[in-house]
Amino acid sequence: MTTPTTRQPSPQLFFQTINAYQQTEALKAAIELEVFTAIGEGNSTAADIAKRCNAAERGVRVLCDFLCIMGFLSKDGNRYALTQDSAIFLDKRSPAYLGGATEFISTQDLMDNFKNFADVVRKGGTLNKEGGTVSPDNPIWVKFARGMAPMMALPAQLTAQLIDPNADQKLKILDIAAGHGLYGLAFAEKNPQASVVAVDWPNVLEVAKENAAAKGVADRFSTIPGSAFDVDYGEGYDLVLLTNFLHHFDPETNEKLLRKVHAALAPGGRAVTLEFVPNEDRISPPETAAFSVMMLGSTPSGDAYTFVELERMFANAGFSRSEIQQLPPSIQQVVISQK
Amino acid sequence: MTTPTTRQPSPQLFFQTINAYQQTEALKAAIELEVFTAIGEGNSTAADIAKRCNAAERGVRVLCDFLCIMGFLSKDGNRYALTQDSAIFLDKRSPAYLGGATEFISTQDLMDNFKNFADVVRKGGTLNKEGGTVSPDNPIWVKFARGMAPMMALPAQLTAQLIDPNADQKLKILDIAAGHGLYGLAFAEKNPQASVVAVDWPNVLEVAKENAAAKGVADRFSTIPGSAFDVDYGEGYDLVLLTNFLHHFDPETNEKLLRKVHAALAPGGRAVTLEFVPNEDRISPPETAAFSVMMLGSTPSGDAYTFVELERMFANAGFSRSEIQQLPPSIQQVVISQK
Repeated sequence: MTTPTTRQPSPQLFFQTINAYQQTEALKAAIELEVFTAIGEGNSTAADIAKRCNAAERGVRVLCDFLCIMGFLSKDGNRYALTQDSAIFLDKRSPAYLGGATEFISTQDLMDNFKNFADVVRKGGTLNKEGGTVSPDNPIWVKFARGMAPMMALPAQLTAQLIDPNADQKLKILDIAAGHGLYGLAFAEKNPQASVVAVDWPNVLEVAKENAAAKGVADRFSTIPGSAFDVDYGEGYDLVLLTNFLHHFDPETNEKLLRKVHAALAPGGRAVTLEFVPNEDRISPPETAAFSVMMLGSTPSGDAYTFVELERMFANAGFSRSEIQQLPPSIQQVVISQK
Repeated sequence: MTTPTTRQPSPQLFFQTINAYQQTEALKAAIELEVFTAIGEGNSTAADIAKRCNAAERGVRVLCDFLCIMGFLSKDGNRYALTQDSAIFLDKRSPAYLGGATEFISTQDLMDNFKNFADVVRKGGTLNKEGGTVSPDNPIWVKFARGMAPMMALPAQLTAQLIDPNADQKLKILDIAAGHGLYGLAFAEKNPQASVVAVDWPNVLEVAKENAAAKGVADRFSTIPGSAFDVDYGEGYDLVLLTNFLHHFDPETNEKLLRKVHAALAPGGRAVTLEFVPNEDRISPPETAAFSVMMLGSTPSGDAYTFVELERMFANAGFSRSEIQQLPPSIQQVVISQK
């Protein structure tokens, strides 16, 4: 996100924005070529990086300069170095490596939703005939579950810490559209009395099961395969987790789901919603508010809902009150709704 | 271009950059739908803009919020307004309207050069089999001549002012790859003793002729249709203009051309090169240096050359000395080379 820094009339913002797609393509290319990993391994000149990445030196030099300009690398003489963030998130050898997320958030399928964006705006929703990312059993959610997990580890831990700070009570948790399962699993890892039931498409739940086993909590983890709108949740849950789910649907659809969630909660139970919740102005914080564009392009009627809108959906579904919490350094928010 | 603002590890730059293509698509859509013009005409709510643009209110609301986030609009309550720059450059009714530039700088053809960018980096040049934008008589240059002219009016005037401040001497000017012709025409408009010979593909020269007629200087404007590498320039020129041309080719090819330019100049004549000339670090100024990515994707061997590199090409072609001048507020530079 860029803001103009000069008062003199300038076409600079126009020019930058119209070419912004090159930033996406360059970052994707750098990840695919393992440029960050190559530099992390000690290759610092364009010639050495090119050799390690099996690419032309000229191409690598231009790419690496552009990565410097974008803030992903630094340069001293003709030597490139990783920034702190690139070392943590973009070197394949780092446990926090995020490069796999490109398998979900920048696949050609997803990006194609934004071609002919004028037609998307005319229609007011995705042009994708199958309903975009919310089509039944869409294989993109397996990519999501695998690719986005590293990006979700921190917000999952922050959410568990916010909701269950003492981790000393029995908790029965329903994790709706669990994906990689990390949100529910963060509770289970922290609190030995927490058990998790995860709902998602069957192929996606396989990823969540792997993660539960890897974290050593498979004995407190079970699954309900199917659509969150159709399956029987059971009842008596202390917490129902709705992480990055409501933004895919219109308010009416969400209210229908939330009534089901309300019924599944034990008395005193809480729904915990992790979302991109912009301020009521819908333009701040910028990164949070910008998520509405992702939903316009990729779903028929999803949105980045404000707190007032979410509060109304929960109230209409029978919840007594909702509150919002920030989750720094994440750009997302948590809405806690009381049965 | 974004730089990280926090020292705490954050995937924010990654996330922003991987989605940056949505900025391009949203801006293109807003121009196509005439959103800026609609707002300039007095439509300020999403409902009114949607009606004027024949689009869905939901789509327009999300698009306009995103335009606010990017810095193209402001918002007060539910009313959108143009920024100063958007009013000048993006409202169709403005004489400085730049929206037509999307017909050149963000056509699908040009953008497709950046798909599979990892392969471009591996190869070290465009994947386009016809040689990308430098293929003979490529129709993209007619789009360029028409679409980019408004963007070039200011730098053309600044260049003429820099090179011919008093405008009181006879000047015979050769404008190579003239395109819209605006660079040569800026001299002719300012100086009644200046005459211009423009070289470009025949279909492109039609646009330049229209512009010469519109500016009332057709009697001092003539043309040489064909490739700048092949045609006979004639001789005795006081100035040869090389605007946004050398970046398409490798140094050896440029030197060949510059020898021809040198021969066409009168004694004491000057070559005037307008280019994206990054500093020797190749990463600053950021907008100037980023142009090398455009050349990597769209040409076999073009580049944003540094002053040292340009100076060497001119010296090898027989020029006695070169100097560089900034051209604020343009992000481009002028190199003046003496025969």
